[in-house]
Amino acid sequence: MTGLTQRVITAIIFAVVMIAGIFTSKLTFGILFLVITALCLWEFFTLILKGSKTRKTRRIMGVGLGILPYLEVFLSDMNWIDTPSPLVQLTVLTNLLFLYIIYELIRLSDQPIRHIGAMMTGFIYIGLPYAMLYYIGAQFDGFQPTIIFGMLLLTWTNDTAAYFAGSNFGKHKLFPQVSPKKTWEGSIGGAVGTIIMGAVLSFIFPVLSLNTWLAIAAAVTIFGSIGDLVESMLKRSVGAKDSGTLLPGHGGFLDRFDAFLFLIPFVLMVLLVFGK
Amino acid sequence: MTGLTQRVITAIIFAVVMIAGIFTSKLTFGILFLVITALCLWEFFTLILKGSKTRKTRRIMGVGLGILPYLEVFLSDMNWIDTPSPLVQLTVLTNLLFLYIIYELIRLSDQPIRHIGAMMTGFIYIGLPYAMLYYIGAQFDGFQPTIIFGMLLLTWTNDTAAYFAGSNFGKHKLFPQVSPKKTWEGSIGGAVGTIIMGAVLSFIFPVLSLNTWLAIAAAVTIFGSIGDLVESMLKRSVGAKDSGTLLPGHGGFLDRFDAFLFLIPFVLMVLLVFGK
Repeated sequence: MTGLTQRVITAIIFAVVMIAGIFTSKLTFGILFLVITALCLWEFFTLILKGSKTRKTRRIMGVGLGILPYLEVFLSDMNWIDTPSPLVQLTVLTNLLFLYIIYELIRLSDQPIRHIGAMMTGFIYIGLPYAMLYYIGAQFDGFQPTIIFGMLLLTWTNDTAAYFAGSNFGKHKLFPQVSPKKTWEGSIGGAVGTIIMGAVLSFIFPVLSLNTWLAIAAAVTIFGSIGDLVESMLKRSVGAKDSGTLLPGHGGFLDRFDAFLFLIPFVLMVLLVFGK
Repeated sequence: MTGLTQRVITAIIFAVVMIAGIFTSKLTFGILFLVITALCLWEFFTLILKGSKTRKTRRIMGVGLGILPYLEVFLSDMNWIDTPSPLVQLTVLTNLLFLYIIYELIRLSDQPIRHIGAMMTGFIYIGLPYAMLYYIGAQFDGFQPTIIFGMLLLTWTNDTAAYFAGSNFGKHKLFPQVSPKKTWEGSIGGAVGTIIMGAVLSFIFPVLSLNTWLAIAAAVTIFGSIGDLVESMLKRSVGAKDSGTLLPGHGGFLDRFDAFLFLIPFVLMVLLVFGK
């Protein structure tokens, strides 16, 4: 099988699983992103704990801690657990993060600051956004999978339009120290394409108004592009090329979702400010 | 002035300011711990960013970000700002933490993972506990400064009883790799003294029941002692002896509050489980 065939097959399977998971039911939606959260956390800790002697245990603990915000939102929304008050949620999560700090003490870690920092970063950078994603898709206005699908379409449009604009008109480098191939022309092309797609979405998914879809499109093109660069920065600083190998020809899950997860908190801010 | 005189004078001034601030009014209580939060954050980032080339800017940003949870609770409780919903609070804070990640990208940081980890750790390890402290003292059951004063008395009792028991009966080292002087005998003496003090507090500060005070005393002796070791671990891993020099003869504020800040989330958990 050639590299291209492998890439295409992977992309098709990936798209089918994503669309089926998002639209079938709230349960499949919840499970789909639970799995994606866990895989992104796993790859994040694999990456960021590179060279650490006891990476295996800490990676498991990091996935366990980082997935808790998502689990709290998901399980209580499914009525499988009582909905804890925000104060109780905050207290439970803080207690558990502090217990992890104690774990570093007991293990007589040689790099406690690095390990604690990695754990707290994974929790905030991966754990919180996906919990917010579940809230946006299942609770902001009831179960509205089209919002999430729209966010994914916008992210994909941004990537694709930037790629084509950059390939054809790219001259001025955007951020050569972090991502050598990106150009200003590509970014502008991505922004134009994403805003147009935002306008289109307001007709096919009228659950949100035109203004809100346009504001989401703006957040996607700005913070999605930055999120892509942020993951490049993290990989670069540990000397890695891909975050994983789970998606043949496409790197890892974190590589696929780096833009998407980074833009989630900003899209939630847009929704809180603009409403539906 | 001899070292001892200096220590005693500092201790007296410190105690007077603390007691006056805690009991005078909710405003002085709020300002006192706002200042303490800022100073602890400042020393934390001084310590943890040791050797970083651009420590000054990041330290200011770290204090600014880390103090936000406290400010949100304090200012809305004083009715100086509208009380944001927990979702809005979470979204605003996450957006700002993500903007800090973007700052690391733009600055082309040579150690982005280290800096981001430091920022997230300061936010969770210092920022969240003090916001919880304000909640415990001013909102859990209205303005109840005796709860906070009791927590401080318990922490001080634990230290002092452990010191005397350790000096007189100390034989078996507790955790020689992190804190060479601590002994099991000292810790047991500290626990006994703290539990007795917890019983005493239920008579002089009957705002909480005997059971709740005893559970808080247990949390203080366990997690206060551990918090002390945690800060030793952090200092040890960057090769520092004291966190600062603001309190002559006593080290820095973080050295004074290392046990206290660490036990706050666990005391809040006790209060949520046991009630008044």
